[in-house]
Amino acid sequence: MNRQRLERVVEYMKLEELEQIVISSPASVYYLTGYWVEPHERMLALYLDCRGKAVLFANAIFGLADTPDLPLVCHGDGDNPVTGLAQVAKPGRLGIDKFWYSKFLMGLMELRRDIVPVPGSDPVDLARKQKDDVEQEKLRTNSRINDKVMESVMGMLGEGVAENELAAQVNRLFLQNGADCEGTQLVCFGANGSDPHHSPDSTLLKPGDSVTIDIFTPIGRYWCDMTRTVFFRTVSERQRQVYELVRRANEAAIAKIQPGVLLSDLDKAARDVIAQGGYGPYFTHRLGHGIGLDCHEPPDVSGSSHTPVEAGMVFSVEPGIYLPGEFGVRIEDLVLVTQDGCEVLNAYPKELQVID
Amino acid sequence: MNRQRLERVVEYMKLEELEQIVISSPASVYYLTGYWVEPHERMLALYLDCRGKAVLFANAIFGLADTPDLPLVCHGDGDNPVTGLAQVAKPGRLGIDKFWYSKFLMGLMELRRDIVPVPGSDPVDLARKQKDDVEQEKLRTNSRINDKVMESVMGMLGEGVAENELAAQVNRLFLQNGADCEGTQLVCFGANGSDPHHSPDSTLLKPGDSVTIDIFTPIGRYWCDMTRTVFFRTVSERQRQVYELVRRANEAAIAKIQPGVLLSDLDKAARDVIAQGGYGPYFTHRLGHGIGLDCHEPPDVSGSSHTPVEAGMVFSVEPGIYLPGEFGVRIEDLVLVTQDGCEVLNAYPKELQVID
Repeated sequence: MNRQRLERVVEYMKLEELEQIVISSPASVYYLTGYWVEPHERMLALYLDCRGKAVLFANAIFGLADTPDLPLVCHGDGDNPVTGLAQVAKPGRLGIDKFWYSKFLMGLMELRRDIVPVPGSDPVDLARKQKDDVEQEKLRTNSRINDKVMESVMGMLGEGVAENELAAQVNRLFLQNGADCEGTQLVCFGANGSDPHHSPDSTLLKPGDSVTIDIFTPIGRYWCDMTRTVFFRTVSERQRQVYELVRRANEAAIAKIQPGVLLSDLDKAARDVIAQGGYGPYFTHRLGHGIGLDCHEPPDVSGSSHTPVEAGMVFSVEPGIYLPGEFGVRIEDLVLVTQDGCEVLNAYPKELQVID
Repeated sequence: MNRQRLERVVEYMKLEELEQIVISSPASVYYLTGYWVEPHERMLALYLDCRGKAVLFANAIFGLADTPDLPLVCHGDGDNPVTGLAQVAKPGRLGIDKFWYSKFLMGLMELRRDIVPVPGSDPVDLARKQKDDVEQEKLRTNSRINDKVMESVMGMLGEGVAENELAAQVNRLFLQNGADCEGTQLVCFGANGSDPHHSPDSTLLKPGDSVTIDIFTPIGRYWCDMTRTVFFRTVSERQRQVYELVRRANEAAIAKIQPGVLLSDLDKAARDVIAQGGYGPYFTHRLGHGIGLDCHEPPDVSGSSHTPVEAGMVFSVEPGIYLPGEFGVRIEDLVLVTQDGCEVLNAYPKELQVID
């Protein structure tokens, strides 16, 4: 157990008046215990009470080892996974991890009708939102790697290259630079770019296409994540106009970042630029997301996130405009909030590029 | 909506006495609606009642389009995602998808205290367990591709190759053969093979190592999944003994497959072989899992799965022995249950191989 982090979580539990919580996010369990497990459909759950008592419940297949400061209760594939937890939890309110599968929650409620499940992710999320020095340095290094990979990939653009070929190259480059694993990298040509989550397929690059490259991977457990949009061979007046709007939106939000400003005001700063340019309805998602041990983690950087920016936060700033059937533009940087502003972790240029 | 599949699901709802259910699994939503969405932390939920009424609730970012036979209710990132569902659901029992995030379930319970959440995945899972002809042919074709990729990868074994290099090659080969995306492929050398879920890292291959290759990917939405273990340059007597036990366990289970036999009896058939060989405690997981639109889906093929094998089921048979600090062996095939036995979908050989 990382005692320092545990104490921070317990402090937040007290602030939230949560006497006990269940942590199931693999990243949060790792944050506190140092165990990294991908449980898939099986159960991994760390029980914590506000006196700092911790018990880990895990499927035996994960192969975890007991430690003096963290009792471990294992179950097999044929067992009811929540039996052990039902024996340890106290009656009353029990904070539940937001991503815990309903099957476990309903199983626990079945065994323990005296337990009242309530949202319980905040204590760990709040602790994880402020990155310590070690975490900041990892995120900084990883974004530098992302800059380098982006540069290499841009050099591979050419007529007839397929989206999924480039995505595979991104994974290869990340792996050569120490990535923990491969993943789905977003490479979108032309009209495909109008779907913010388009998965790379066999679409081939042709002159006049916009090219949106959104690449992200964990390296030593901490994520990088950056998006750039360029144009292949030619750029139309409409493409240029949309691009410049998105770039100005990205820069307007970044210029506003400092401790105390509301996260929703950052979203608004970017959204106002795009709305004033006449493309408001086509910026269809929030401005950004926190990042660290998870690619998407708190803080939420959206219009409904009325909490202040704090030093030590790391999040993405990624406005976009998506024109169905035509093209899309997104520009995404990671930023680390400092005492009086922010450090932009990505350095790959944002000036409009037409690539030959 | 696929009306034929919808009707099957509704039949199972009636059998389970569920008047209404919430389906959130991306694969199940696709199975019924033809929409493929990866919602990540956002909400995608298909509400179904036993008269066949269906409403889809989705974040606007998914970019779905309304259709005449499937009303669509969209929400934005700043909205409470369950508001629409809370307006549609009826009081009383509501079947809940096993993997629905607790945050949505708790949000719904907050708005609708007259709703009683109960496990509700069975109706779709039962429908999906029996693959129709189109699905069977896809699974057959994809396993043939897996055989081919396995053969290519075996040809790449050589002194000093790294686990993660081989894993990247597997992804490249799958992609060339039409895979939908890249994923984490399991390549384990020597002692790493004693962790059934070891993620490939920079470990280099050396003579005397066991090599476990467990590769799986979706191709046209349907998964393949196969594991083979070979030995590099030399094989010890203990390695040979363990290998032959696992192979016999795999074959014993496959020989037993036919409609009417209990799934737990298949698990037992394999486990008995390994236990009689003296390695019972080292076969630490269930025998297998159903496969189709998800890599792991019902039926569960384990000692606690006391339901009968049915024609049309497709599942894995993957006994293993894991010796901590030494090595591991796993041999996995997919099988399609026929009227009087089964068709083994993988053809890559299972005889002990020592690769030079």
